[in-house]
Amino acid sequence: MTPAAPTPAYRRLSVEERRSQLLTSALSLFAHRAPEEVSLDDVAEAAGVSRPLVYRYFPGGKQQLYEAALRSAADELRHCFDEPREGPLLPRLSRALDRYLAFVDQHDAGFSALLQGGSVVETSRTTAIVDGVRRAAAEHIVSHLEVTTPGPRLRMTIRMWITAVEASSLIWLDEDKQPPAEDLRDWLVEQFVAMLSVTARRDPQTDALVLALAEDV
Amino acid sequence: MTPAAPTPAYRRLSVEERRSQLLTSALSLFAHRAPEEVSLDDVAEAAGVSRPLVYRYFPGGKQQLYEAALRSAADELRHCFDEPREGPLLPRLSRALDRYLAFVDQHDAGFSALLQGGSVVETSRTTAIVDGVRRAAAEHIVSHLEVTTPGPRLRMTIRMWITAVEASSLIWLDEDKQPPAEDLRDWLVEQFVAMLSVTARRDPQTDALVLALAEDV
Repeated sequence: MTPAAPTPAYRRLSVEERRSQLLTSALSLFAHRAPEEVSLDDVAEAAGVSRPLVYRYFPGGKQQLYEAALRSAADELRHCFDEPREGPLLPRLSRALDRYLAFVDQHDAGFSALLQGGSVVETSRTTAIVDGVRRAAAEHIVSHLEVTTPGPRLRMTIRMWITAVEASSLIWLDEDKQPPAEDLRDWLVEQFVAMLSVTARRDPQTDALVLALAEDV
Repeated sequence: MTPAAPTPAYRRLSVEERRSQLLTSALSLFAHRAPEEVSLDDVAEAAGVSRPLVYRYFPGGKQQLYEAALRSAADELRHCFDEPREGPLLPRLSRALDRYLAFVDQHDAGFSALLQGGSVVETSRTTAIVDGVRRAAAEHIVSHLEVTTPGPRLRMTIRMWITAVEASSLIWLDEDKQPPAEDLRDWLVEQFVAMLSVTARRDPQTDALVLALAEDV
């Protein structure tokens, strides 16, 4: 992500446009540096505006800006999961993973900082935002699998896989984005099926799903 | 874990004994309440000592006490991984998981608070302590597998499984410790083999390991 070009002074932005411009600048900075290393001055400079203007939009300072940027990134991330409910299931999962990995690629260090925790700007509110995205991912998967009442074993398997996806994307960023995103994506889809298959041995609901997946071409 | 019985006033403890007694009391409180809900007064009361005495041992206050308690819990957790290098591999993994799940069971809410982040007492130092335990777990597994130079795919698979184990233990605590610990342990061991088997399709090193595991009875 390249920082937004400075806005010429004569161009007047609406409140919403300005807010969104500041969030974009902030996100592009968080993508390359840990949140604690980004100052409001940096955000003002990247957006080509004055520091007081940044404060006018985010009177709570960096914490408020960070949370707003995080919320906007979380919304973007949720959109990665939008996938029409048609066609075979595993290709749907592959397409959602492609969008997710493109998001991880783009947000890079900011994504790591967020998920790894221990940041000075991390609070129970930021943790709740991230958990909300995890829950949304799990709900999407359940709804694509067309399960109305997922049992505890199926839910545990899906949540474990989502955590495993997160962990693998952090490692992927650490390892200079190797293997290539498409390889990682295929491997994650295969892990999904393998994890479900283990659960299927103990859980009839998951067993039925695994059978359906095998027939769903 | 029940809180330590108040120490009678006439019993003089050594500095090390006293420190360890305070940490035990703190850990037993953190096991049932979020760190931010535990005060130094609570710790003093649980240990049967005065508040100034707690401060004498932990002049940095609750943050210092929390970090010390976390370090002591992390050491205990590392001991769970100690397993003689003899006999078939999967039963070794099962035994380590049994000890790990007993630890999770015992530390309960404190374990969740720690791993879920967003706590007011979470800092980059506490995150580093937790990451150190994760790294130790990965190194133990690699050494039991007798791999001297694990390739990136094998390392990624092991780290993904460790994250999945963490996630499943948090869910397990959330779900009133269902399924029973032995079921969860067997399922986790099977997930380990399944995840390695997926990686084996793309990675000769992991493939050789999976073959060895199948023959290792």
